[in-house]
Amino acid sequence: MIFKKEGVILKIITFSHYKEVIDEVLKDSYAIVIDLLRATSTMIWAISNGAKGIIPVEDISEARLLKRLDESVLLGGERGGLKIEGFDLDNSPLSYKKEVVFGKTVVMTTTNGTRALKKASFAKRIFLGSFINAKKTAEYIIKETLHYNIDTISIVCAGTEERFTLEDILCAGYFVDLFKGNLSDVFLDDLSLASHVLYKKFENDPHEILKYSYHYNHLKKIGFEADLELCLKKNFVDCVCEYKNLVVEKV
Amino acid sequence: MIFKKEGVILKIITFSHYKEVIDEVLKDSYAIVIDLLRATSTMIWAISNGAKGIIPVEDISEARLLKRLDESVLLGGERGGLKIEGFDLDNSPLSYKKEVVFGKTVVMTTTNGTRALKKASFAKRIFLGSFINAKKTAEYIIKETLHYNIDTISIVCAGTEERFTLEDILCAGYFVDLFKGNLSDVFLDDLSLASHVLYKKFENDPHEILKYSYHYNHLKKIGFEADLELCLKKNFVDCVCEYKNLVVEKV
Repeated sequence: MIFKKEGVILKIITFSHYKEVIDEVLKDSYAIVIDLLRATSTMIWAISNGAKGIIPVEDISEARLLKRLDESVLLGGERGGLKIEGFDLDNSPLSYKKEVVFGKTVVMTTTNGTRALKKASFAKRIFLGSFINAKKTAEYIIKETLHYNIDTISIVCAGTEERFTLEDILCAGYFVDLFKGNLSDVFLDDLSLASHVLYKKFENDPHEILKYSYHYNHLKKIGFEADLELCLKKNFVDCVCEYKNLVVEKV
Repeated sequence: MIFKKEGVILKIITFSHYKEVIDEVLKDSYAIVIDLLRATSTMIWAISNGAKGIIPVEDISEARLLKRLDESVLLGGERGGLKIEGFDLDNSPLSYKKEVVFGKTVVMTTTNGTRALKKASFAKRIFLGSFINAKKTAEYIIKETLHYNIDTISIVCAGTEERFTLEDILCAGYFVDLFKGNLSDVFLDDLSLASHVLYKKFENDPHEILKYSYHYNHLKKIGFEADLELCLKKNFVDCVCEYKNLVVEKV
C-alpha cells in the first residue's frame, strides 16, 4: 500500500517526552501517544479484549472518585510500576484479560502515559501507539490524514520521569518506518530521523539494545519480564484506539 | 589508555537541549556543553588560534555594552546563522583566524550555544565539546574525574530552538565512545546509549545522516558548507577549553 498524492508532504515531528510537546505544532496535527512500557500497550490490549473504554486520570484520588460515582468501573494503574492499594488492576497488560475487562469501563492512572495523553489534547485527533497494533494504526492514520489534508503527524513519547526513553523512541521509529514505507513524500524532524535509524538497527531484536536501558530493566527487576515480551511483539492486535472526549475507545 | 579504579562507576547523562537540564544532576558533575554547529566548535577553534578568552553573552545589547567598556574586545556571533550588524565576526569558525583573534578577547552571542553554557553553570566544571578536540577533552576529563572522585559526567547538547538536534547527539555519542573505551565501568542513561548507537553507525561518515537533518541543511543553504567540514573533522585541535567565571579559556 503506497499512497501518493501530488505535492503533499507529510511532516513527522517526534517529542521525546510529554513535557517537550509544542502546542503550536500539535494543534494542526494528528498525534500518536506512545508509552510502550506499559500504559498505551495495556490500554490497547484491554480494548482489544473487549473493554468498552478507558478513562485515563492523573491522580489516584480522581480514580477513586469516579469509582464512587459508578461502582461498575474497574480501577487500574501503577505507581513505580506496582499496583495501587485498593485498585482492581495494575498496569500489566496480562492482567487485562477478556474475562476481566469485557464490556467494562476501566479508570486508569499511570505516571507518564496518562500525562502524555492529556498533554496531547491540543491535537486534532489523538491515537494510542504501541508495537502491538502499530501497522493498523499507521494505515488508518495515513488514510485519514490524506482524506482530511492533515499535513503533520506528531509522535508524543511519554518518556520516563520527563526524560528520553529508548523503548518509546524505538516504537516511534517503527511508526516513522510505516509512514515512510507507505507514503511518497515524508519530512522527518531530527528526532524522527534518529528514531528511525535506531528502530531499523534493532528491528529484529529490540531486546538487544533495551537490555541496557533504564525502564526496561526496572520492569524486569520488579518481575514483569512477560510484559516486555508482549509489549515488544508486533501487530497481533487489530484495533485502532483513539483518545477522545477524555476516553480511550476503539475507532 | 584504559583507566581502572575498583568500584568506581562513572555515570554519563545526556541532555538533548539546554532546557532539559536538571540542576540536581548537574551539580555534582563535570559538564560537557556541545553546540557542534557551530558555537562550541568556533569557540574552541578561536582559543586554539590564540584568542585569550571568549565571553559568551545572551543578548546583542550586552555584547555592545562590553565593547563600550573595553574597545579592544572583538564582537562575534550570529542570529539565524548570520553575522550581526556592526559586529566584527560572525559565528563561522573560519572567521576566527590566528591573525584576527590572537591575543584578543572575543565577546560572543549565539542563539543556543551561549544559553547552554549558562544553563550548565550548576556543574562543578564546564567544558566545551566538539569533534575537533573531543579526544583531548575526554582524556582530560577522565583524569580529573578519577582524581577528584567525580562520578557523573553530564553532556549538555545545546539543541536547536529547544529541540533535539542530531549533530549535537552524534558528538555526544563520540564522547560516550571515548569514555566507554577508556574506562572500565560506565553507566549510560537512555539518551547516552542512543547517542552512542547513532554515533557508531555513522562514525566514518556523519554527513551520510546529517544531510537529512535540519540545522546542517540550514547552514548549507546559507553558504556555510566549509564550516560543516571543519566542525565534523575529528581531533585536529589540541586544547581543552573550560567555561569558568563567565569566560571560556584554555585549561
